[in-house]
Amino acid sequence: MTSATGTPAYRRLSVEERRAQLLEAALSLFAHRAPEEVSLDDVAEAAGVSRPLVYRYFPGGKQQLYEAALRTAADALEQCFAEPPEGPLTTRLARALDRYLAFVDEHDMGFAALLQGGSVVETSRTTAIVDGVRRAAAAHILAHLSVAEPGPRLRMTVRMWITSVEAASLIWLDEDKQPPLDDLRDALVDQFLAILTATATRDPETAEAVRRALALEPPDGPVDALVRRVLGLAGGAAHLQ
Amino acid sequence: MTSATGTPAYRRLSVEERRAQLLEAALSLFAHRAPEEVSLDDVAEAAGVSRPLVYRYFPGGKQQLYEAALRTAADALEQCFAEPPEGPLTTRLARALDRYLAFVDEHDMGFAALLQGGSVVETSRTTAIVDGVRRAAAAHILAHLSVAEPGPRLRMTVRMWITSVEAASLIWLDEDKQPPLDDLRDALVDQFLAILTATATRDPETAEAVRRALALEPPDGPVDALVRRVLGLAGGAAHLQ
Repeated sequence: MTSATGTPAYRRLSVEERRAQLLEAALSLFAHRAPEEVSLDDVAEAAGVSRPLVYRYFPGGKQQLYEAALRTAADALEQCFAEPPEGPLTTRLARALDRYLAFVDEHDMGFAALLQGGSVVETSRTTAIVDGVRRAAAAHILAHLSVAEPGPRLRMTVRMWITSVEAASLIWLDEDKQPPLDDLRDALVDQFLAILTATATRDPETAEAVRRALALEPPDGPVDALVRRVLGLAGGAAHLQ
Repeated sequence: MTSATGTPAYRRLSVEERRAQLLEAALSLFAHRAPEEVSLDDVAEAAGVSRPLVYRYFPGGKQQLYEAALRTAADALEQCFAEPPEGPLTTRLARALDRYLAFVDEHDMGFAALLQGGSVVETSRTTAIVDGVRRAAAAHILAHLSVAEPGPRLRMTVRMWITSVEAASLIWLDEDKQPPLDDLRDALVDQFLAILTATATRDPETAEAVRRALALEPPDGPVDALVRRVLGLAGGAAHLQ
């Protein structure tokens, strides 16, 4: 659509709207191609605007656009773990993971490029953005565990789980998105419970956090199901009891 | 020491010895500084040779030297998980982790730079080298589990653990090398047992691998100790039984 004077419709967008539109176009390109294979011409074409207009918004060129797109993606990822502090921990985790995994599913290769840092436009600034997402996710989870000043063992356990969620996401993309997302989410919740329990056996603070969390779990919830399945396995380990 | 004709002593080294010496000097510099802060002059000085000599061995300059040093480090890391397939799984894992963590301790910032990929000389080739280490470590562990053709759940679990070992190593460096390495190694073995068990409750192949592994564990070993500590925690979860 063009106006009566022939001005292209895109001039009608506000500065903020235009910026958001360009970032969305960039993110969607980064989702399907490595950053080094995306040119500013591609972004201009995807957004239906001219290359000079892209430069007007991102005078730093591709590096600036990439960082801004990364920042937008990082903000979205950070929000995944923002969940009201109510109800069972496993329900909160499952909801957060559903959002996180939906983001992975939607952004695909862009998510992989973001995390793997294998791109030529990788700099310490983009690494810092990705680290910021990890730190924010860890802070959310520690808040869900009601731990204000976590000791090193609990902090390390939570950060290790976040890293392994990232790894699982990349493997999932690599394996043609198998298993189904619901299965992956349930497996990740189980793994969180498993490593938190292992740490709890060596760390009183973590043990206390686990007790608090367990008190909120329903008797027929995921924790109960996991415990029953573990007990079902235990036949093979009878000689250890 | 110089020869009678004034030729510097370094000419006496064989090509292979010289190359190894330069790589060792480079690795030791990368261990204490980010790759972008290491110049070829620094490497020449550390090795006690001239800059042209460094260029003769690495005509591709710093990028080539960095990749070769990375390759050397990667070979060493890959060997960490090569352990004779004898005795309890937990003993094999503990030995592999002791070697891996000793490497982390020794190479310090160089290890961090290698894994974080936040360097300006980062390319898809160096990323491929790091991925190769991960794949080799996963293959070793799957071999220790006596699984020749692992299904996706077991494969994902092992790869997630390897990623979380990397994360733990980076966090350990970041936290002034706390806790002591023995504690960290024991915690990582526990976490492996924990996530393997969680996966086993959903995947028959993993359950079979766990049963085989448990059959080799001594009655007073780390698995027994972990099970007793978990049962000791379970008081707080009594309402779930």
